[in-house]
Amino acid sequence: MKRTKFLILSLLIMPLLVNAQEFPEGSIPNEHNLAGVQWPRVDDKGHTYFRVFAPNAKEVQISFRGPMTREADGYWTYVSPEPEAVGFHYYQLMIDSVYVADPATKSYYGMSKWVSAIEIPEGLDYDKTQDVPHGEIRMKKYWSEMTQAWRTCYVYTPPMYDQDTEKRYPVLYLQHGGGEDETGWVFQGRMGDIIDNLIAEGKAVPMIIVMDRGYASLPGSEPMRGFDNPGMNAFLAGATAPAATTPPATRERPAMSSLMRGVFPELLVKEIVPMIDSSFRTKTNRESRAMAGLSMGGGHTFQVVMPNLDKFAYLGGFSGGAGSADQIDQLYDGIFTDSEKFNSQIKLMFLSIGEKERPERVKAFADALKSKGLQNIVYYESPESAHEWLTWRRSLREFAPLLFK
Amino acid sequence: MKRTKFLILSLLIMPLLVNAQEFPEGSIPNEHNLAGVQWPRVDDKGHTYFRVFAPNAKEVQISFRGPMTREADGYWTYVSPEPEAVGFHYYQLMIDSVYVADPATKSYYGMSKWVSAIEIPEGLDYDKTQDVPHGEIRMKKYWSEMTQAWRTCYVYTPPMYDQDTEKRYPVLYLQHGGGEDETGWVFQGRMGDIIDNLIAEGKAVPMIIVMDRGYASLPGSEPMRGFDNPGMNAFLAGATAPAATTPPATRERPAMSSLMRGVFPELLVKEIVPMIDSSFRTKTNRESRAMAGLSMGGGHTFQVVMPNLDKFAYLGGFSGGAGSADQIDQLYDGIFTDSEKFNSQIKLMFLSIGEKERPERVKAFADALKSKGLQNIVYYESPESAHEWLTWRRSLREFAPLLFK
Repeated sequence: MKRTKFLILSLLIMPLLVNAQEFPEGSIPNEHNLAGVQWPRVDDKGHTYFRVFAPNAKEVQISFRGPMTREADGYWTYVSPEPEAVGFHYYQLMIDSVYVADPATKSYYGMSKWVSAIEIPEGLDYDKTQDVPHGEIRMKKYWSEMTQAWRTCYVYTPPMYDQDTEKRYPVLYLQHGGGEDETGWVFQGRMGDIIDNLIAEGKAVPMIIVMDRGYASLPGSEPMRGFDNPGMNAFLAGATAPAATTPPATRERPAMSSLMRGVFPELLVKEIVPMIDSSFRTKTNRESRAMAGLSMGGGHTFQVVMPNLDKFAYLGGFSGGAGSADQIDQLYDGIFTDSEKFNSQIKLMFLSIGEKERPERVKAFADALKSKGLQNIVYYESPESAHEWLTWRRSLREFAPLLFK
Repeated sequence: MKRTKFLILSLLIMPLLVNAQEFPEGSIPNEHNLAGVQWPRVDDKGHTYFRVFAPNAKEVQISFRGPMTREADGYWTYVSPEPEAVGFHYYQLMIDSVYVADPATKSYYGMSKWVSAIEIPEGLDYDKTQDVPHGEIRMKKYWSEMTQAWRTCYVYTPPMYDQDTEKRYPVLYLQHGGGEDETGWVFQGRMGDIIDNLIAEGKAVPMIIVMDRGYASLPGSEPMRGFDNPGMNAFLAGATAPAATTPPATRERPAMSSLMRGVFPELLVKEIVPMIDSSFRTKTNRESRAMAGLSMGGGHTFQVVMPNLDKFAYLGGFSGGAGSADQIDQLYDGIFTDSEKFNSQIKLMFLSIGEKERPERVKAFADALKSKGLQNIVYYESPESAHEWLTWRRSLREFAPLLFK
């Protein structure tokens, strides 16, 4: 009788035992997982743990990392041998040589397609939603005469913008990197929380922030797509070149040459700035207009601001846009050799870079500018971070408080 | 010499010949493909053509459709045997039994994850961006006391909202379906273009439209995730139940029972409506407030509006929310048996359904209500469309002009 009861009890709890699973010690679900999804996971030392069910696959890999191990239960697993760099990392699954987003996570537009993300948390609040007044992020549609196309930009308006209907605000134009789009700063970059928090602390002045799509082509020309990755472009063009053999974009920066094609910088000056000034309550003097961007967007920033100092007084290049120290005298009609003109016109030239990408070149550029007697040059090196969004979130946190003061 | 020239010329054009490819007659790239991506394609009869490079895969399928055919060049192809239903269809690739989004298209949140979409175009302009004044769609963050969480809703403000700063507007609460979220109506549903066009034509009055996340759980309870698909939920919960053996959600509606769990309807009435009325220039009388939703959101709409007729005067159930004709007398405290009360309070009860889903039951419900002497009952059947976004875009086009007049 006792035994029967025990047997019944065992049968009842059996399913629980079968479903029970071990989580690595000190690990939590990746913050970009779908609600409630347990894998991939990150531990408190920065190791990543991936787990994918693919009983019929011959080979499964995690991009940037390597092959997964086939387990007996049909799952494939990968554990990073070393702690990974802190911050937001794009990744893809490779299932029998096809690169796809991991269905376990949210998808973000990066690497010229929709991919997954895993993040090693920094454990700070500056980029988290806090109990402070929040601005709004608006999708704004407009017609572009130059490209003969409808475009959409994302526009951050600060807290009280709708209540304080007489007040006018300075404007920051903030650009994404190659292979990303106008949504990058909103979702990967968390710009809304970063700026809301800075304004609440009194560190940044309330401003309007415009994020547009850094690709623009004249009618009839080939559309811009970001990375100049031959395999990817062939894939995008539908050629027989195999998408699956396209290596995933590395964390190195893509060749600027290809990213700088297209007419986006001209479009921003001729059409986007006037559209924003006529649609929002902006201040329109040069001391109330700034531009910054990451990687390709840093290149766009220098292309836009340096020839248009009548319209902009602040600029920032985050992991991009800096020239090389030995060419300073030739750049931008020699403005770097005219310290009087430079110092009177440029209220801030901010140059940042991640410690784990190529800081030396950018630091040398900043030092060379300072050695020419140029003022308002600020260099920021993001500790321990790579050519990734953590470097750019931190860059925005350091850059925004220096604007419009 | 001539021969040499010819040989050189041949060698030069060889790569072009190699890369040349045949497109099916009358076919164009799927409108949801990434910029410049040629496959999948749709022809003018509604056939779909898929092409995926997976030389190392053992089996590739297109969800809802079936196995692809392995070609000699490493590509897999699928051609729909019959024309597909007109409209927007979610789909996934299955690569060696793992369901993933197709990297060739944009990703949308549906089926409780990020998936791909292919669309058989209807060829109409009502849901396209046209040369008319455009509203803005804003991401609005707010704190929820009930759920102790920060939430984000998307809010459409009509053209001139920022210029005409004294004007107040009626509000439509518009909800997504199971497995989707607050972004569904914006991207899959194209609500911005539909409403912009209706307002420009003078068919709809300028209104504010609020789209929130139809999942809300009290602190400590299990998070809502949409579809009650055991395989999917086990996957979401990280159990050992295999995600890959989870059948893709069919186009049939999921069980309402599971979708109706959670406290979203209560949250909308107690927290979202007051938050919207304090954040935007709304009209707050019941005749200026409407709610509609699709599938699960239709259920939410009836749950919210019927017990709160002091706050709402209009409601719409798109492919969801309708009861069954034989239960009319029991529903909602018997309001359907009190035609005087019903006719004095409900200015519109809109019921719509796709011709290719289950129209009979909804039509019977609408007819039964009318036979009770109830007025302001509108039934709309969407021709040729299924339990999908085309049915719901058309439903919004038919519903919005009937509001606030």
